[in-house]
Amino acid sequence: MSYDLVVIGSGPGGYVAAIRASQLGMKVGVVEKAELGGVCLNWGCIPTKSLLKSAQVFEYLNHAKDYGIKIDGKASADFSAMVKRSREVAGGMSNGIQFLFKKNKIEVIQGTGKLTKDKKVEVTNSDGKKDTIEAKHVLLATGARSRQLPNLPQDGEKIIGYRKALTLEKQPESMVVVGSGAIGSEFAYFYNSIGTNVTLVEYLDNVVPLEDEEVSKQLGRSFKKAGIKVMTSSEVTNVDTSGKKVKVTVKTKKGEESIEADIVLSAVGIAPNIEDIGLEEAGVEVEKGRVKVDEFYRTSAEGVYAIGDIVPGQALAHTASAEGIICVEKIAGKDVEPLNYGNIPACTYTTPEVASVGMTEKAAKEAGYELKVGKFPFSASGKASAAGHKEGFVKLIFDAKYGELLGAHMIGANVTEMIAELVTARKLETTGHEIIKTVHPHPTMSEAVMEAAAAAYDEVIHI
Amino acid sequence: MSYDLVVIGSGPGGYVAAIRASQLGMKVGVVEKAELGGVCLNWGCIPTKSLLKSAQVFEYLNHAKDYGIKIDGKASADFSAMVKRSREVAGGMSNGIQFLFKKNKIEVIQGTGKLTKDKKVEVTNSDGKKDTIEAKHVLLATGARSRQLPNLPQDGEKIIGYRKALTLEKQPESMVVVGSGAIGSEFAYFYNSIGTNVTLVEYLDNVVPLEDEEVSKQLGRSFKKAGIKVMTSSEVTNVDTSGKKVKVTVKTKKGEESIEADIVLSAVGIAPNIEDIGLEEAGVEVEKGRVKVDEFYRTSAEGVYAIGDIVPGQALAHTASAEGIICVEKIAGKDVEPLNYGNIPACTYTTPEVASVGMTEKAAKEAGYELKVGKFPFSASGKASAAGHKEGFVKLIFDAKYGELLGAHMIGANVTEMIAELVTARKLETTGHEIIKTVHPHPTMSEAVMEAAAAAYDEVIHI
Repeated sequence: MSYDLVVIGSGPGGYVAAIRASQLGMKVGVVEKAELGGVCLNWGCIPTKSLLKSAQVFEYLNHAKDYGIKIDGKASADFSAMVKRSREVAGGMSNGIQFLFKKNKIEVIQGTGKLTKDKKVEVTNSDGKKDTIEAKHVLLATGARSRQLPNLPQDGEKIIGYRKALTLEKQPESMVVVGSGAIGSEFAYFYNSIGTNVTLVEYLDNVVPLEDEEVSKQLGRSFKKAGIKVMTSSEVTNVDTSGKKVKVTVKTKKGEESIEADIVLSAVGIAPNIEDIGLEEAGVEVEKGRVKVDEFYRTSAEGVYAIGDIVPGQALAHTASAEGIICVEKIAGKDVEPLNYGNIPACTYTTPEVASVGMTEKAAKEAGYELKVGKFPFSASGKASAAGHKEGFVKLIFDAKYGELLGAHMIGANVTEMIAELVTARKLETTGHEIIKTVHPHPTMSEAVMEAAAAAYDEVIHI
Repeated sequence: MSYDLVVIGSGPGGYVAAIRASQLGMKVGVVEKAELGGVCLNWGCIPTKSLLKSAQVFEYLNHAKDYGIKIDGKASADFSAMVKRSREVAGGMSNGIQFLFKKNKIEVIQGTGKLTKDKKVEVTNSDGKKDTIEAKHVLLATGARSRQLPNLPQDGEKIIGYRKALTLEKQPESMVVVGSGAIGSEFAYFYNSIGTNVTLVEYLDNVVPLEDEEVSKQLGRSFKKAGIKVMTSSEVTNVDTSGKKVKVTVKTKKGEESIEADIVLSAVGIAPNIEDIGLEEAGVEVEKGRVKVDEFYRTSAEGVYAIGDIVPGQALAHTASAEGIICVEKIAGKDVEPLNYGNIPACTYTTPEVASVGMTEKAAKEAGYELKVGKFPFSASGKASAAGHKEGFVKLIFDAKYGELLGAHMIGANVTEMIAELVTARKLETTGHEIIKTVHPHPTMSEAVMEAAAAAYDEVIHI
C-alpha cells in the first residue's frame, strides 16, 4: 500500500493533520495502536472535562439552597456513574473520529508504527504480524505518556497515573496528588469535590506554577477553602506501599510529614513517546528528549515530519492540532505562516477555572518591558454576582510603550471560554485602548476584560 | 449648587458617564428619582440574570442523574427564595454604585429632574419640594419603561410588565408572555423551567425575531422541547380580566384561539422616558420619539446631551454605557471616535443562550454582499459533549470579497460570554483566515468559532 502521507498516532495532532491533508487532496493512512483520538480524547482532555462537569453539577446541588431550590432528601456523588458517563463521552468522540476518517477517506492501519531505515513504516499488529507501508511523507505524532519519577514508581494500583485515575473501580477515601500542573490540579479538585480527602503536593512555591503568580496564589487559596490540603514547596521523598494504605513521606520547608492515603496519583508531567519508533534507524535527530524540527515540522530526515508532544513547544492538544495543520499545508505547497508559540492559550478546568495566554508579569518584567498592568475582580462584576461566581479576576499586562497586550491571565468561572478573546486580540495585534473601546455585552463576565484593560490605563469604571 | 456636569438618571448610561466624567476632573451631580443603577441594575439585566441562574441550577438538579449524581428525595423550586436572592443581588449592586459615587466624589441629588428654559435642572423631591441646580453641561439619561399596548393595558395585577414579573408574590400556575424579544423570551424560559405553564406569543414569524433566522428557529425548537407553547405569527386581540383567570384571545394564522392564564406578561418593547423632562422648555429636538443627537450625543440645545434608551440606537445597557463615556470624554476635550453601532453585541440569557453581533445573513444579502457562511454545531464539539450542552451552533458570515466578518450568530451554552471574541475581532478588522489561524484552547466551546470560520472556507476539521 502506498500513501501520500502516513501519520503515526491518531491523537489531536495526528487525526487533525490527517483530515486536513485529505482535504488538500492527499491519500492518507493513519497508524494507531489503541483508540482513535489518542490520549487527549480517550484518556485526557475529554473524559476529565466530563468528570469535572459532574463535579461542578454536584457543587451546584450542594449549594442549591443559595439559588432558591429546596431538596427534600440527600444528594450524593455516584462515582461509578460519573466514570461511566465520562467513558461514554470519550467513546462517542472516538466514534466521531472514525466517522470523520471515513468521510475523508482516511485509512486506519491498526497496530504499532515504526520508521524503517528507508523511511517506510513498519506496522506491527496485536498478533505480532508485521506489515510495511510506503508513503511520500511520514508524520510522527506519537504523543506522550505519564512521566515516571524514580521515587514514585507507578504500580497501577496504589500509585497511579492519569489513565487509572479516570477509571478507578471505587472512589478512594483519601488521595495524595503529586504535582499541581493542570492534570494534578484538575484531579485534586475533582476528587475533593466529590468527597475524597485530597492532599496536593507541589515542589514549587505555588500550585499551577507556570501561571502568573497572582493566579497561582488565588487558586491555592480557593483549593484550601474547598478543603484540599495544599502542600507547596514540598517534595515526596518516600512512598511505602507495603501496608493497606500508602504511607507518603513529604519533605516540606518545616520538616518531614507523613501522610496516609488509599491512592497516590503521580501527575509530575509527561514523557514524549520517542522510543521504538525508528528515529535512529531513519536518521531523525533528537535534542533534549524531543524530536528536532524546523518551523514547518520537518525533521532531519527528508520526508519525515513530527508534531505534538514529541517536539518542543507546549505539550497541549491545540498546539498539536495547529502544528499538524501547518505541517500538512506546507507539504501541500500552501503559503503558511509558522506558529507563534507565544500566543498559545493554556487552560485548567478546576473551580475556579484558570486560563492564560502570553507572558506572566514576572516574565514580562524579566524580558525588560515597562508594564501597564490592569486587574479587575469578578467580585465587582454584576454577572458574576447574579451567577454566584464572584471568585477570581482578569489581569491584563500591556507594554507601556506601544500598548501591546503582552499577557492575559484569568481565574474564575468560564474563563476557559473567555480567553479566546485575548488570543484573538493578540493575534490581531491589539492595543489596550482598542480593548477598552470594544463594547462588551452587559451583563457578562467578559466585561471584566474591558475593565481590566481600562484599569491598566486608569479608566476603570466599576472599581 | 453648581456642577460641571449634571446627569439626569443613574442607569448604566448615567452612572457610567458620571464616573468617567469625575475621572476626567469634572464636578458631577446625578439626579435620581428611584434606586441608583436604574432599571438595568434594579429591574432588568441584573435581577433577571439572577433568576435565570436559579433556573439553570434547577435544571441541573433535574438532570443530576445524567451527570452521575443521586438524589434521594425531591428537588423543588422555592419561588420566593429565588426572588429574594435576585433582590439581594440587585440591592448589592445598587450599593456598589453608591460606593463608586462616593469614591469618585459624585453627588447624588434624590428627586425627579427636569430641564428648565435656561438649561438649569429643576429637581422635585418626593415631598414635592423643588430645587434648582446649575451645570455647565446637562446629560439626559432617563432611560425607558415597558411599552403599553392599547389592547394589553397593564394593570399590575393580571396584566403585568417586567418589573412586576420580577417580584410576583407567588409563582403563577400559568402565564401568557406577549412578545419574544430578549425580555419576553427570558421570562418565558424562567417561568417554564420552574414549572409554570407558559405560552409565548410572537407577532412575527419567529421568536427573538431580530436574530438571524436560523438562530431564531433553533430557539423556537428548544423552547418547544422544553415545554413552552410557542405561538408565532400570532397576535393578542383581546384580554378579558373579569374572571379569576385572564382569558387571552390570540389570532393565529389558523384562526382564533382562547387561552386562560393566571398572568399575562406584556413584553412588547420599551418606551423612552422623554416626557416631563423639559425637552420642549429647553429647546431639545425630538425625532421619531427619540432625542436627536449628533455622534457625540449633543442635542440641539447647547450644553445639553442625551444618551441611552432616549436616543436612537440599540436600547441596551452596554450601548448606553459606551455612549456615556464617549459623550463625557468629548466634553473633556479628549480625542474620541464615534461609536460603531454596527459592532454592538446583543444577548438573550435563555437556555440555550443567544448572542450576536453585526449583520444577519438576510441583512447581509440585502446589503448586496456576496457571502461565505460557516456554521459549526456544538453537537460536534468535545467540550459541549463533556458538559452535556450539545444544543446550538456558531454561525459566521464573511464578505466573500475581502474576508470581512460581517456578522456572528450563536446559540448554545455560554455563548453570551463567547460573543466578546467576535466583537473584538470585528473591532480589530479581522478576516476569516485570521480566525482560523488563531489557536483556540482545547477543549472549549470557543473552538466552534474557529471551526465555523474554517467551515466558511471549506477547511473545517470536525464536521
